[in-house]
Amino acid sequence: MGETRRVKIMDTTMRDGHQSLLATRMRTEHMLPIAEKVEQVGFHAVEIWGGATFDSCMRFLNEDPWERLRTVRRHFKNSKLQMLLRGQNVVGYKHYADDVLEEFIKRTVDNGLDIFRIFDALNDTRNMEKAIEFVKREGAHAQGTVVYTISPVHDYDFYMRTGAELKEMGVDSLCLKDMAGILAPQPAYDIIKGWKEKLGIMVQLHCHYTSGMASMTYLKAVEAGVDVLDCAISTMALQSSQPSIESMVAALKDTPYDTGLDLELLSEIAEYFKEVRTHYAEFDNASCSPDTNVLTYQIPGGMISNFINQLKEQNALDKLPQVLAEVPRVREDFGYPPLVTPSSQIVGSQAALNVLLGDRYRIATDEVKNYMRGYYGRPPAPVNEEARKKIIGDEEPITCRPADLIEPELPKAREECKDYMEKEEDIVSVALFPQVAPNFLKERKKKKEANQQ
Amino acid sequence: MGETRRVKIMDTTMRDGHQSLLATRMRTEHMLPIAEKVEQVGFHAVEIWGGATFDSCMRFLNEDPWERLRTVRRHFKNSKLQMLLRGQNVVGYKHYADDVLEEFIKRTVDNGLDIFRIFDALNDTRNMEKAIEFVKREGAHAQGTVVYTISPVHDYDFYMRTGAELKEMGVDSLCLKDMAGILAPQPAYDIIKGWKEKLGIMVQLHCHYTSGMASMTYLKAVEAGVDVLDCAISTMALQSSQPSIESMVAALKDTPYDTGLDLELLSEIAEYFKEVRTHYAEFDNASCSPDTNVLTYQIPGGMISNFINQLKEQNALDKLPQVLAEVPRVREDFGYPPLVTPSSQIVGSQAALNVLLGDRYRIATDEVKNYMRGYYGRPPAPVNEEARKKIIGDEEPITCRPADLIEPELPKAREECKDYMEKEEDIVSVALFPQVAPNFLKERKKKKEANQQ
Ligand SMILES: [Co+2]
Ligand SMILES: [Co+2]
Repeated sequence: MGETRRVKIMDTTMRDGHQSLLATRMRTEHMLPIAEKVEQVGFHAVEIWGGATFDSCMRFLNEDPWERLRTVRRHFKNSKLQMLLRGQNVVGYKHYADDVLEEFIKRTVDNGLDIFRIFDALNDTRNMEKAIEFVKREGAHAQGTVVYTISPVHDYDFYMRTGAELKEMGVDSLCLKDMAGILAPQPAYDIIKGWKEKLGIMVQLHCHYTSGMASMTYLKAVEAGVDVLDCAISTMALQSSQPSIESMVAALKDTPYDTGLDLELLSEIAEYFKEVRTHYAEFDNASCSPDTNVLTYQIPGGMISNFINQLKEQNALDKLPQVLAEVPRVREDFGYPPLVTPSSQIVGSQAALNVLLGDRYRIATDEVKNYMRGYYGRPPAPVNEEARKKIIGDEEPITCRPADLIEPELPKAREECKDYMEKEEDIVSVALFPQVAPNFLKERKKKKEANQQ
Repeated sequence: MGETRRVKIMDTTMRDGHQSLLATRMRTEHMLPIAEKVEQVGFHAVEIWGGATFDSCMRFLNEDPWERLRTVRRHFKNSKLQMLLRGQNVVGYKHYADDVLEEFIKRTVDNGLDIFRIFDALNDTRNMEKAIEFVKREGAHAQGTVVYTISPVHDYDFYMRTGAELKEMGVDSLCLKDMAGILAPQPAYDIIKGWKEKLGIMVQLHCHYTSGMASMTYLKAVEAGVDVLDCAISTMALQSSQPSIESMVAALKDTPYDTGLDLELLSEIAEYFKEVRTHYAEFDNASCSPDTNVLTYQIPGGMISNFINQLKEQNALDKLPQVLAEVPRVREDFGYPPLVTPSSQIVGSQAALNVLLGDRYRIATDEVKNYMRGYYGRPPAPVNEEARKKIIGDEEPITCRPADLIEPELPKAREECKDYMEKEEDIVSVALFPQVAPNFLKERKKKKEANQQ
């Protein structure tokens, strides 16, 4: 440890923290009372929007996600606010037309968001390119993301190459994103050191604590030159969430990387969220232990629970070991996609089908067919030709950016919601979630009318 | 990371793991079925005895601690078995005569224990000297321990000096013991590197996860040259227990420090203890979050809960901040003892008394008086003279090793238990726990007689 270089922290408590621990259920009312204290800490940024929260607001909480953004923005006077944007999937689970993406980003910047973290499940940079362009055009900070995964094609060069591609596309910073908790200290050190030395760009690291390695990985990332670490407040940290802010602050104290953050102030915030968390006990994951299945099988914990449920329904729980063994096989056939939404579901359900039918790829889900057609983008490696033939026969996969084939979607959404929309943002909500947003917005209108009578 | 040097792991699950997480309640029957698998892993050692387990066996579990040792030894054919010995306190909470210590060690070695970790709460090496001598004489491995704490007198030189003193006394290895979870990565690196370079001795590191720093601390210890890390199986790790074995194994995999341990085998053991843990749910601490009070106040989590209970009883919970502020003051007056059993109780109860009475040291507990008399050993720094005068007046403190003043205790214990003892070890149990052991042994005899009729 030679030079002095303060490490910065992004607080994920109000987005990924509760998305990971409390099934994305935290309500805006529980964020506002603590905003002033959080602002005093001096975080690099506060993550408060995007990922699954947009959907969850309307689907489960009867909250307007746009209102959340506005209200939180009002309460955070100076902090940078950050969100997670799923590239061309925006905040949904499929590819949307460019007009939806563009309008989403414009409205989001208008409502006060500062930093967009943009990722694609396949690390297909074409699926991030428009998002980066629109964010830059709006004058906001575009953070390009490389999703971390382990495979024969995801070697050091892959991370260097993809980081360089994103820099070429104009991103303001890079994020290495380890949603599964499988990034070990040494590869993190190598990748981040490589990015810092070769690209000279600001680098942020995002890990989940799932396997219990993340704080060690952060420490080596710090030594490699990382600029920002994603952490959650202690009482909303660990398990499937991020490393704890306070533990990182204490670990780096009096080193050249000292964050300078105030542990006493942080402990007040921790106390606050400890109480908040009790309101969501029904969604809270009970286990305190690291989920080391992720290390043994390199399969995210959530996928394994899905398998168990699925196999129980079929009265075939004894087949779990075969299904777990089938996952890496399917993943290889599919060109080694990272196991993150939506590819984890695509790979997982096919692996289960293969084992249950005893016949590989005889039946494939629609998502798997679309994956083979190239509708999710370019897989990291070429798919297995034989598998593709079994799944889509002689159909020719597309080779362009998937969204190039999608017609503009806003006009239809505008038409759909003309009777109950209140603001332009509502159109974006409807375009993104046509099954969920209309009902939510109609109910909202009904309630207002009832109140006025 | 240059040279290749495998790091070894000691498994603490069956001693410190359940002592920390399950109030020391794990029964022998839950250790035996997994012994064979644990043995296959290839740990440096398995910690299975000592600390609070001896007392707990008789007090809560109606188990003979000696029988536990014998039975566990039978089930572990090749593994080294380790225990925690509280120096002259043996496995109790006060100083015992040398004859008790000697007989305890002799019987323990006879029953198959391999490695004795020997510590003293004040790091007074005189309180460890006889234990080291007896362990060496029995041909077992004597590990000298330095308890980690933070104070103006506990600087780098202190750790080097105390390590050297222990080496001089003939220990086979050194342990740096961080019971409070306050050892940050950088000081761990410095101390362990210092010991390795200056003393060239085998070094083991023991941390608790309480503040969430321990895995990071372990990682830097590895880089500094540590030989053995204390870890618990994932399902009995983190919180107030040790770092998780699997997380450390995965973090070091494919590095020059690769442990070589098998993650699949470990995951079977983890599954086993996951189930075992459910049997002790009533003793299980519910919080999964790092306890960062330990970082803010450098006061172990357990002390703070004690304060809260104590102050509630006095209807004075509003005085908690003053009590927390009084602790460092008292600790300074007392010559900076590490806050570990029994000094944490001594300092803590006096701090609470001082605040409640509004008059520092007007009343002192018996333990505090004995502390000032030197009956616990030599404090790390001279005590505050004024404080001592208030507490014991003109009484002259002793300057010798406290146990030098204690008459042999075995004869009385032998006499006491002559009617119900079954083996020589019972005398040691009675000498150590005269309030608990006799009842336990009498009940045992009654039951046996009832069974024979
Ligand atoms: Co995340
Ligand atoms: Co311990």
